Amino acid sequence: MMRGRELVNRLATGLVLLCAALALAPAARAEDGYGLWLRYAPLEGEALERLARFDPEIRINDHAGYIDPTLAAAADELARGIVSLLGDRAKARPSGNGIIEVACEGMMDMNPERFIVTPFREAGRRGLRITGGDYGACIYGAFGLLRELSLGHDPASITLDEAPAMPLRMLNHWDNPDGHVERGYAGRSIFDWWHLPDRLDQRMIDYARANASIGINGVAVNNVNARAFMLEPDYIAKLARLADAWRPYGIRVFLSARFSAPVDICGLATADPLDPAVAAWWQAKADEIYAAIPDFGGFLVKANSEGQPGPQDYGRSHADGANMLAAALGDRGTVIWRAFVYSADDETDRAMQAYNEFVPLDGQFADNVIVQVKNGPVDFQPREPFHPMFGAMPNTHLMLEAQVTKEYLGFASHLAFLAPMWEEVLDADTGHGGTVVRTVAQVVAPVGMAGVANTGSDRNWTGSDFDQANWYAFGRLAWNPQLSSDQIAREWAAQTFSRDPQFLGAAVPMMLESREAVVDYMTPLGLAHQMATGHHYGPGPWVCDLPRPEWNPCYYSRADAEGIGFDRSATGSNALGQYASAIAARWSDPETIDPALLLWFHHVGWNHQMRSGRTLWEELVWHYDRGAAKVDTMAETWSTLSEYVDEERFRAVSEMLAIQQREARWWRDASLAYWQSVNGLSLPAGAEPPAHPLDYYRGLEFPEAPGQ
Amino acid sequence: MMRGRELVNRLATGLVLLCAALALAPAARAEDGYGLWLRYAPLEGEALERLARFDPEIRINDHAGYIDPTLAAAADELARGIVSLLGDRAKARPSGNGIIEVACEGMMDMNPERFIVTPFREAGRRGLRITGGDYGACIYGAFGLLRELSLGHDPASITLDEAPAMPLRMLNHWDNPDGHVERGYAGRSIFDWWHLPDRLDQRMIDYARANASIGINGVAVNNVNARAFMLEPDYIAKLARLADAWRPYGIRVFLSARFSAPVDICGLATADPLDPAVAAWWQAKADEIYAAIPDFGGFLVKANSEGQPGPQDYGRSHADGANMLAAALGDRGTVIWRAFVYSADDETDRAMQAYNEFVPLDGQFADNVIVQVKNGPVDFQPREPFHPMFGAMPNTHLMLEAQVTKEYLGFASHLAFLAPMWEEVLDADTGHGGTVVRTVAQVVAPVGMAGVANTGSDRNWTGSDFDQANWYAFGRLAWNPQLSSDQIAREWAAQTFSRDPQFLGAAVPMMLESREAVVDYMTPLGLAHQMATGHHYGPGPWVCDLPRPEWNPCYYSRADAEGIGFDRSATGSNALGQYASAIAARWSDPETIDPALLLWFHHVGWNHQMRSGRTLWEELVWHYDRGAAKVDTMAETWSTLSEYVDEERFRAVSEMLAIQQREARWWRDASLAYWQSVNGLSLPAGAEPPAHPLDYYRGLEFPEAPGQ
Repeated sequence: MMRGRELVNRLATGLVLLCAALALAPAARAEDGYGLWLRYAPLEGEALERLARFDPEIRINDHAGYIDPTLAAAADELARGIVSLLGDRAKARPSGNGIIEVACEGMMDMNPERFIVTPFREAGRRGLRITGGDYGACIYGAFGLLRELSLGHDPASITLDEAPAMPLRMLNHWDNPDGHVERGYAGRSIFDWWHLPDRLDQRMIDYARANASIGINGVAVNNVNARAFMLEPDYIAKLARLADAWRPYGIRVFLSARFSAPVDICGLATADPLDPAVAAWWQAKADEIYAAIPDFGGFLVKANSEGQPGPQDYGRSHADGANMLAAALGDRGTVIWRAFVYSADDETDRAMQAYNEFVPLDGQFADNVIVQVKNGPVDFQPREPFHPMFGAMPNTHLMLEAQVTKEYLGFASHLAFLAPMWEEVLDADTGHGGTVVRTVAQVVAPVGMAGVANTGSDRNWTGSDFDQANWYAFGRLAWNPQLSSDQIAREWAAQTFSRDPQFLGAAVPMMLESREAVVDYMTPLGLAHQMATGHHYGPGPWVCDLPRPEWNPCYYSRADAEGIGFDRSATGSNALGQYASAIAARWSDPETIDPALLLWFHHVGWNHQMRSGRTLWEELVWHYDRGAAKVDTMAETWSTLSEYVDEERFRAVSEMLAIQQREARWWRDASLAYWQSVNGLSLPAGAEPPAHPLDYYRGLEFPEAPGQ
Repeated sequence: MMRGRELVNRLATGLVLLCAALALAPAARAEDGYGLWLRYAPLEGEALERLARFDPEIRINDHAGYIDPTLAAAADELARGIVSLLGDRAKARPSGNGIIEVACEGMMDMNPERFIVTPFREAGRRGLRITGGDYGACIYGAFGLLRELSLGHDPASITLDEAPAMPLRMLNHWDNPDGHVERGYAGRSIFDWWHLPDRLDQRMIDYARANASIGINGVAVNNVNARAFMLEPDYIAKLARLADAWRPYGIRVFLSARFSAPVDICGLATADPLDPAVAAWWQAKADEIYAAIPDFGGFLVKANSEGQPGPQDYGRSHADGANMLAAALGDRGTVIWRAFVYSADDETDRAMQAYNEFVPLDGQFADNVIVQVKNGPVDFQPREPFHPMFGAMPNTHLMLEAQVTKEYLGFASHLAFLAPMWEEVLDADTGHGGTVVRTVAQVVAPVGMAGVANTGSDRNWTGSDFDQANWYAFGRLAWNPQLSSDQIAREWAAQTFSRDPQFLGAAVPMMLESREAVVDYMTPLGLAHQMATGHHYGPGPWVCDLPRPEWNPCYYSRADAEGIGFDRSATGSNALGQYASAIAARWSDPETIDPALLLWFHHVGWNHQMRSGRTLWEELVWHYDRGAAKVDTMAETWSTLSEYVDEERFRAVSEMLAIQQREARWWRDASLAYWQSVNGLSLPAGAEPPAHPLDYYRGLEFPEAPGQ
């Protein structure tokens, strides 16, 4: 298909009368990012020749005219992908050279999600056969094969044998039924509850395709700060339409349930989990849901946390509450109970409260309850140590909760590739005989990972093009935690932007270093939660007047004239005591702890000598400077890549990077201005002074910041 | 470009092993509606051959390397459109046969927005020349020519000579800076204030293209219920980036200004328009805006209406307020002052209040003030008589305000093509020596039309595909009010869906009848404002308990045991007295008034004999039934058109029509159930009883209804 740019160019040669100069903006239609990593951009060169030679036809099982919808979806995706990868070459008449056979069924001895892609030959023709444990495996096989083809691999030599490391790979949407997304930075919710069940937007299918392509198999559609009315019949009908649409893609729906729903929507006098009427209400509600959605996944519950109702309102434990709901679901589904709890009354170090509440309950949760634990003990900070509950509850199913949306990492405007952060926590040795990933994937029984989604109504789904990479990385890591950040970045960037080695050689390192840049300019050396109040936009280290102490940045920094950092050693809160002894021993000494976690666990003097030879103060400044400089480098790198990227997305990323450059500088300057007001120290020689006095930064207000 | 569907089909022939059956959902990428009427779908048949033969190159003016951005945009659009219309044929090498010359400049004697397209010949080559009064005319000329080409007209015989009927053709966005759109049914605001001015979404360019293509040349970007902070410097910078982006497309930006802004954002003690400090503040503010946006259009103001501040708060008149702002703008811009006022204290018929407040001020407004008057005297009902202010203020610039978004016509889910409604008001004889359109386009000085926009973040811009037609129709009518609804519907449908005469023969009549269907099933025979409270979703004729009388549906229906309708004749409120005597005379008699307006002006007995031979009650039922039946017919008609429309949009429209069918029935049943409870009459023979008892309808609640 000819593009406008070409027309303009060729016309330029013929211009005479009024003089010409059509060297203007190209008319080529730019890409808008909606296609995600499933653009299937036409192959080139040898990769194109190989696929054109293979020239496959697609075969799927048919039982007397009935085709399983999952197989149909797999074949449909293969056809769409291959036609698109062939580009203009798809026009040629088929040679009948190749075969892709999609043959998933009845391999009863296999993990139902495992798929195998193997070459075969038949009557002189080459073929690739996708087999799997169940139909669902074939959709993974189809996407796995398409990924290989998209990366330009030779169809003749593709062999795959994959099974997910853990059975639950979920997205949690903090989407409200009115369309607002809590901590959403990509527009409005993608779920059009108002028009459901009558209208099913095409986006719901494309969303399922994207998820299936990276192995996500469960979606909690609504905010954990849940509205009870989403359990009412009209919403069950809406949910059922989504479940029907997503079933062919192997996705089960989950609902965030408000614990007080029996009171809220049915006027019961209590929601006490040990009250038989309450249990009966939930049992009937579960039956009602399963009548509409036979494969309903279950309930996700935020209870007794940040004002949400829960079993403790009735003097019952988290286990009492979770087990009552688990009994209602029976063997049909799962209760996912969040461990993100901290109390308005408890003066214990916030980082310790979840452990204190949950670890004593180890062994008391029903078998179809999973406790969902955030990666770190506070709240999705740019860097936290792993959560001490991992490894400490050997008789409980634990699942990891990660935040794909960047509440604390610069919203959608900052480029921060999160795979290295998740890799960091998954690979962390808990000291209890394994890593975090062993806990969530292997120890008791395989469990899973949940990611708080970053999707929205924006044309590119995630607000910025590079945030698509975090959705992708989350799914890929939940499928296979052994994948390296580098590989994930590389395959995402190749599918999303360009397979050109020059492009990948520049873009992938930029992605890999981006999260550490955010840590550097926001919260270096183990600092945390220095974001401004409520919306978490921009720096607010000075904030110290909020009613609950643990909502204040000053609670976390503990900065004073002598030093900075939260003493969580035995001389302080002793949060370290929640970790296995080997870990605690290493981290209890400021000299042996990883400096990246220093101020998380220790209050350290400003003049403390770091291993680098710098004082702590100098080291802090060094990190802020490195972070800001890294963003400048990212912007510079990107500016060299225009030839590989369509104009629309190139400009979008460029403009976002310009915002990030300015905001990184703002973070650095505001933070330094504040620390200087506390420690009275001057900046190290050569360090640039903040652009404005501290009062300027303190005076900035952003009532319109999104996502709150 | 080959589609997946074709691949699947051809593969089907070669299937052997597992048996085949790829008669499954096509992989073809469906259209999502983003392209609007600017899809430029490839031509076919003779139309394609003619354009391929013409095979134009494009020439534009160049001054020593400088190309005016508007000309560049025009050439860019021509290149994009022609390449797309040629489809696969754009691949052939150019013959150099044809020329399109874009030559707008310096025709000082012409209306600067007038364009002419004329054929010419040059050295044996055929050409089309676009000339115009100024650069801006050339963007209209380019879009005008592309419309002709898109409709399949022969390039050899295209001649156009057009100028807009009125100079101001505006969209008013009721978009809030937080992204919420008041009365928006298409998602979130299209304006990303958070990331402006740094990020300019491609949608902002495509929005400008769409507007320019239908002649819209002004945009008020924010809700008339305005936030004062949008006048602050950071928002001026954001607005300036939009103005820069839209300038090449001939669009000037306007800002809704909160009258109390000097108090709200600068702490002045008063916003009294006669206070010199207040006038000085606005003067300085205007200067500040013009420094950033030299072609800033001006302010749109909702004052002393529904709680908004205004000059009456200080004992001043609307003219005092408007003239003060007009002085601040000077000859640089325009104050558009809304006449939509009604008071919480005034017990006068709401339909009369705007006239009462404004007509005495005729002649007092400054020359750069326009008073913006809604089409009818109440509020964008499915049908209203024309507003009595039209024709009654000969010494004031009046502008027509229409609502493109369907607040009272079923939101985005009901198909209702509004051109016939606007045509009805534009063609209405005011009795003051002309029609409404003469008032807004010709009487004193040409003025304009404003449409309350229906755009949002939805992929298809307007929530439903057919609502794009209302955006299109508004612009086309503002450009040329002589265009018929039929022609507008036809050219829109051909560009948006299919040029096939079979398709147009079915779809165009469906569009043309759709608005009358809504009148029939919602508010027949001159009823108005029977919508439920606040959100205006669904029927609420029984509502009678709201604090302000004129917010209640019962205020408008005046239904009682004897009859129904609002007596606005001399025996009642005498709103009729606000109309010219010839009009008032005709409308004051229930026998001579158009039955479509009967209950607007008269309280009529249930057994009143209509000209149809039916009683009023029978006639009402007949209309409700006709409306619901019409929607059934629309759905049936659409179901026959699948071969002409891509799958995604075909299904989207089908699903919306199913919603409309159900809701039309709901409107009919709930209304009849309520009227029966008032009049005690049984239904005419053969009429179906309501599906539910009245209490059922009264009990329905929709707290999540959008747009409020």
